[in-house]
Amino acid sequence: MLYKKNIKDILDWLKTRKSKKVDIKQSTFSEMKEWRFDKDSGNLCHNTNRFFSIIGLEIYTNWGKVNHWKQPIIKQSEIGVLGIIAKYIDGKCFFLMQAKIEPGNINQVQLSPTFQATKSNYMQVHKGVKPNYCDYFLSNKHKVIVDQLQSEQGSRFIKKRNRNIIIEVEEEILVYEDFRWISLDEIFQLLRIDNILNMDTRTVLSGLLCINNNQKVRSLHTFSSILNWLTRMKTYFELTVNEISLNEIKNWKIKNDRIHHVDEKYFDILPIDIYIENREVKQWSQPMIYPKQEGICAFIIKRIDGHYHFLVQGKVESGNFDIIEMAPTVQCITGNYKEAYSKSLHYLEYVLNVESDKIIYDVMQSEEGGRFFNEVNRNMIIEADETIIIETPHNYIWMTLTQIHKLIKFNNFFNIQARSLISAMVLLENEYN
Amino acid sequence: MLYKKNIKDILDWLKTRKSKKVDIKQSTFSEMKEWRFDKDSGNLCHNTNRFFSIIGLEIYTNWGKVNHWKQPIIKQSEIGVLGIIAKYIDGKCFFLMQAKIEPGNINQVQLSPTFQATKSNYMQVHKGVKPNYCDYFLSNKHKVIVDQLQSEQGSRFIKKRNRNIIIEVEEEILVYEDFRWISLDEIFQLLRIDNILNMDTRTVLSGLLCINNNQKVRSLHTFSSILNWLTRMKTYFELTVNEISLNEIKNWKIKNDRIHHVDEKYFDILPIDIYIENREVKQWSQPMIYPKQEGICAFIIKRIDGHYHFLVQGKVESGNFDIIEMAPTVQCITGNYKEAYSKSLHYLEYVLNVESDKIIYDVMQSEEGGRFFNEVNRNMIIEADETIIIETPHNYIWMTLTQIHKLIKFNNFFNIQARSLISAMVLLENEYN
Repeated sequence: MLYKKNIKDILDWLKTRKSKKVDIKQSTFSEMKEWRFDKDSGNLCHNTNRFFSIIGLEIYTNWGKVNHWKQPIIKQSEIGVLGIIAKYIDGKCFFLMQAKIEPGNINQVQLSPTFQATKSNYMQVHKGVKPNYCDYFLSNKHKVIVDQLQSEQGSRFIKKRNRNIIIEVEEEILVYEDFRWISLDEIFQLLRIDNILNMDTRTVLSGLLCINNNQKVRSLHTFSSILNWLTRMKTYFELTVNEISLNEIKNWKIKNDRIHHVDEKYFDILPIDIYIENREVKQWSQPMIYPKQEGICAFIIKRIDGHYHFLVQGKVESGNFDIIEMAPTVQCITGNYKEAYSKSLHYLEYVLNVESDKIIYDVMQSEEGGRFFNEVNRNMIIEADETIIIETPHNYIWMTLTQIHKLIKFNNFFNIQARSLISAMVLLENEYN
Repeated sequence: MLYKKNIKDILDWLKTRKSKKVDIKQSTFSEMKEWRFDKDSGNLCHNTNRFFSIIGLEIYTNWGKVNHWKQPIIKQSEIGVLGIIAKYIDGKCFFLMQAKIEPGNINQVQLSPTFQATKSNYMQVHKGVKPNYCDYFLSNKHKVIVDQLQSEQGSRFIKKRNRNIIIEVEEEILVYEDFRWISLDEIFQLLRIDNILNMDTRTVLSGLLCINNNQKVRSLHTFSSILNWLTRMKTYFELTVNEISLNEIKNWKIKNDRIHHVDEKYFDILPIDIYIENREVKQWSQPMIYPKQEGICAFIIKRIDGHYHFLVQGKVESGNFDIIEMAPTVQCITGNYKEAYSKSLHYLEYVLNVESDKIIYDVMQSEEGGRFFNEVNRNMIIEADETIIIETPHNYIWMTLTQIHKLIKFNNFFNIQARSLISAMVLLENEYN
């Protein structure tokens, strides 16, 4: 593929940031010295009880066809910070991006936010080295453009949230090795290339949508109808979760080389040994989630009354903070969507068989490489044809980009898969409003 | 006190709704046949496990001076519905209000919303009689003015929320006995009389603030600064709660006639026998919360740059759904505020000693009489003098009424004590903006 020179420069620079020596391989749980299956709880924990753990979760819900199940899930109580520094240089908006290696990354290096840290990192509880640019985010001295608590994958994490923050800095900033100023326009082009901007970057950037919002756009539903739709669903659908022991999940097998579902579905949990030459800590081991198949996330959009509307799905996921979050029209990331296809999941057939002239966006995007091992999902934005009518199933609603803007400023409205897709619209607002 | 004729009519009508025979008295737990201390959990539960239970809660937080404690708390998982029907009659807005008897009510009868039901009530799980006006709220046929999930007392309930909904109906409606159309203007005057509008009514009406909001008001902080302030606090402050057995709370004593704190602080839990002649179920018994002292909730307001600003407090309470909710400037409802006074709680001294010409609103308001026994808190809105400066402690922020409007449309921003006070401002918007 032919890229513009500035984009090619960034891609070339990313390649130079790769580590000289990287060795990532599947191990066994018994060999992972820093991790143990806790004697009391049965859960997979770090010896210090820091970082995260893999626990069992029992779920009761009146959502969907399966109303009771047990599954392993990641528990990580601390709110992490994902922060990007923005700066106007010669009137143009730039972001300070980091070329970051994560063990689960496709391509080894992907572009990540300026700052990515857990609370114990940045509070220096463990007397480690302060992460780069830490003070910019903790000093409260800079102009804040976006500041939200947003969810991670609801089917993989129990109520996990990260602070997504963008600050604008006027002063000169030292650019460390592995960091680079990248313009909004370049970001927009990079979002169209597979597996370059990592998930953390995409979720933070989705908040940018709320910057320019002065247009008057006619919408199918009023804003208060949308809140009414969401409240009605949160009242109707129930989600009760109990933390249980990993050992109590009968359909999952704990073996020494992996934890897996008896039908080889959903995902495995693998013990991974990691060696990365140019990270501060070069060698460690950790469990990682390995998906059993590729997933797909797609928004269908449709021009209604002269303005584009997104078909948003209200969706219950096991680890959700508040029962329901808004998801893409189609989201199949756990479970095989080719199988789901035959079960006639709403809108999946249209998405899989759509004519190519209706495809606006179609990019392979990675999940976060610190927890997910080579997990890639197909991200699509697709225009509706006449078969996609305005009437929808009860858990779907048409929303303009302006209405999405308004909601995305608040915590826990859109799930991470939706935000990943919304980030692709950052520069398209005017066209698709 | 001298009331206008229409207000006097309503107050007289309320008196006629009193039951001929009401008998409410303290019992013993062993005599409460429908309730038991569960053998396994030690918690106080209904024999059917329906309604609610009193459980133990262990709290860890970095908020305030006490960072670890255990307490009894009410657990009630179902989302209840508090609904009001509104109707324009001759161009004037009326609400269909219910004269409702609750065992814990001061005055026996208070004005409550049109519809008040738990999910199992209105889903008729128990094949009971459908509550009046139920279909208006479940049919989704009517115009929805307000529809929010809002919290109850964070120090008394664990993550409890109710759906607060106002619908507007055009058709003629049958007005049952115990119901009456009351105008917005009358509501506003009734809010100025002690213990007339119950807590459920006040919280639903606080959502009305968002109806008229076209004014341009200059504010000290931008809206995104307010979200930044809140996100920063939610990231910094931690709240971890574990449900435990009532028996594990060492500082609380379970006796046959009450559950109480060893120092006779906070509240008691009493076994109450109830007989009310004109309720469908005439006789029952239940535990109720009985406060150990009267509380106070006050907002300080100040004209800044020509516009009134409210001094809002970000506050952690044990049962909060999302760590922090926004509370009045001063909120002392658990614990003796005269004692707290000596501990120099922010702004309490000003509120207690303020000159009477600074007092804008000063009314005794009841907590909900279905759970709380004769609990009354002083509700105040007070104008700042020059000693109240613009700089505030880090967990306070100045906000205009317009900004409060914008946030109150969403779930779990303002706590129930703040909403109770905000309801008093419904008709004062223009004056205090």
